[in-house]
Amino acid sequence: MTKIAKTSPESVRTVACIGAGVIGGGWVAHFLGRGYQVVAWDPAPDAEQKLRSLVDSAWPALERLGLAEGASKDNLTVAPTLAEAVAGADFVQESAPERLDLKADLLAEIDAALPEGVVVGSSTSGYSMSEMQVKAADPSRLVVGHPFNPPYLVPLVEVVGGEKSEQWAVDWASEFYRLAGKSVITMDQELPGFIGNRIQEAAWREALHMVAEGEATVAQIDQAMTDGPGLRWAFHGPCTTFHLAGGEGGMAHMLDHFGPSLKAPWTRLEAPELTTELRDRMVEQTDEVVDGRSTAELIAQRDRRMIAIMRALEEVEREEAAERGEGQA
Amino acid sequence: MTKIAKTSPESVRTVACIGAGVIGGGWVAHFLGRGYQVVAWDPAPDAEQKLRSLVDSAWPALERLGLAEGASKDNLTVAPTLAEAVAGADFVQESAPERLDLKADLLAEIDAALPEGVVVGSSTSGYSMSEMQVKAADPSRLVVGHPFNPPYLVPLVEVVGGEKSEQWAVDWASEFYRLAGKSVITMDQELPGFIGNRIQEAAWREALHMVAEGEATVAQIDQAMTDGPGLRWAFHGPCTTFHLAGGEGGMAHMLDHFGPSLKAPWTRLEAPELTTELRDRMVEQTDEVVDGRSTAELIAQRDRRMIAIMRALEEVEREEAAERGEGQA
Repeated sequence: MTKIAKTSPESVRTVACIGAGVIGGGWVAHFLGRGYQVVAWDPAPDAEQKLRSLVDSAWPALERLGLAEGASKDNLTVAPTLAEAVAGADFVQESAPERLDLKADLLAEIDAALPEGVVVGSSTSGYSMSEMQVKAADPSRLVVGHPFNPPYLVPLVEVVGGEKSEQWAVDWASEFYRLAGKSVITMDQELPGFIGNRIQEAAWREALHMVAEGEATVAQIDQAMTDGPGLRWAFHGPCTTFHLAGGEGGMAHMLDHFGPSLKAPWTRLEAPELTTELRDRMVEQTDEVVDGRSTAELIAQRDRRMIAIMRALEEVEREEAAERGEGQA
Repeated sequence: MTKIAKTSPESVRTVACIGAGVIGGGWVAHFLGRGYQVVAWDPAPDAEQKLRSLVDSAWPALERLGLAEGASKDNLTVAPTLAEAVAGADFVQESAPERLDLKADLLAEIDAALPEGVVVGSSTSGYSMSEMQVKAADPSRLVVGHPFNPPYLVPLVEVVGGEKSEQWAVDWASEFYRLAGKSVITMDQELPGFIGNRIQEAAWREALHMVAEGEATVAQIDQAMTDGPGLRWAFHGPCTTFHLAGGEGGMAHMLDHFGPSLKAPWTRLEAPELTTELRDRMVEQTDEVVDGRSTAELIAQRDRRMIAIMRALEEVEREEAAERGEGQA
């Protein structure tokens, strides 16, 4: 087993994408858009046709985002076998269906065919790398690189290793994704659902509860999100949002003042005990995020972003209406 | 008690804002920006100065959003007494501190001084109107009109009556807020936290749990939101998001296929039982929201919006950098 990367993250030219469904295909589109050579493999008989059609539909979006130099759909090759797909790869993105036995076998196969020192990132959302890396001869270079759908647009990638992954592989993958244009969170420990999905699932379950109880409809829930907290969450996460809700006193004031309302029956999610330790940790870490910006500055930045988002969304609607022949609003 | 509105929502000229803190002051700014005459009252000794300064800082944002004809900061009057503030009002927005006894007394006072047939909307986030309207002589015209911070920017207002509110008042308030530029959800029943805050609180509690357990930092949580689900939630709510996650099969496929993963330990929020009834209700209501749009159409619309948002946010960052004298990126 090697502990030395075959190439530096900066020198990656060829990415192998194993599994080319919605997520795998989204990765293919992303890597093509960033100028990489991409070799894909998927065992489904109609995989290539579906993949090329997915890339075709994603391409206008990638063009609007701005293609990297040399980026082209022609840089996509579909390999007939997994071994051929990974043989010349500088990095492998695995996006197979979410079945543990299948993922474990596939990662072992990838590892066996892959040159030494090449890192593999798995798109898994449901399993930990510790569970999946058990069959591979060299589990040290297998890490999770969990994207959000569509991977060619949503910047977030959560990177984390398993028990047998080595730190160099986690660091290498994090740096590679960053160079490939993603917003990377390198996690210190495995956590079911990682971070983004835990938050997303909490919202989703609360939504299901409301519909189950007949308290709100799907339309009301979606409207409440897009015209309410969702607008802010595109640029201020939940912690910065609540920091601002504390006014000049920030997170500390928010927790000290509204702490008791944590116990209000506002969701079906049980509230954590607001211990002094948790309170202090929230305040301290929020201070780091705020990084010296005053409340007035944060508010000015928030307002500007919210308006920019609303205007951008209105502009898209005007364009779409014009395209439908409804003329300008 | 009257059941006839004094004026139609279209004819409202003067809005009284009772309570002029962050939320009340935000309402003042909103109504001024939409061209209304606003009369404010707040018992704090320095309330007027703080209010005018809040309106001053909100004004550039309102200008960027587009002021209504005749909109002016000069249309703000601060009244010396509550009775004088509401005497000529066509609508009253109450935004007092979140204390039940105080709110109940204040609403009774407003009601006593207010002409017949004028509706009162309360900004409360923590109490139901049924709890708050108990002391008023005419509780029938008291409803909740719950905004999000800042009320002059976030479009959402959740409108709901209490046990003693009459439907005409709920409908009147909904229509008025709509005319005043808000995105209105008229709820059929009282629900602690309404809809938006229940979702927001679910996310917030999950965030607190992660920090409490040392699983993620504030910075990671905020980044996971803004660079992940938060970008989509500015235009597709949680239900439409998961509808798309189901691919061509939409919400039905999502629930039938990923239903079991609902039980995965992805948040501390207990999952609801996915009964056939809940499954069918989700599918049916999602169909209404989707309104005949194909998956391809939805994806094209999503991609376009996400790119517009990201470009708009980048543009704001470039502008801010230029203003700081860092030159163009």
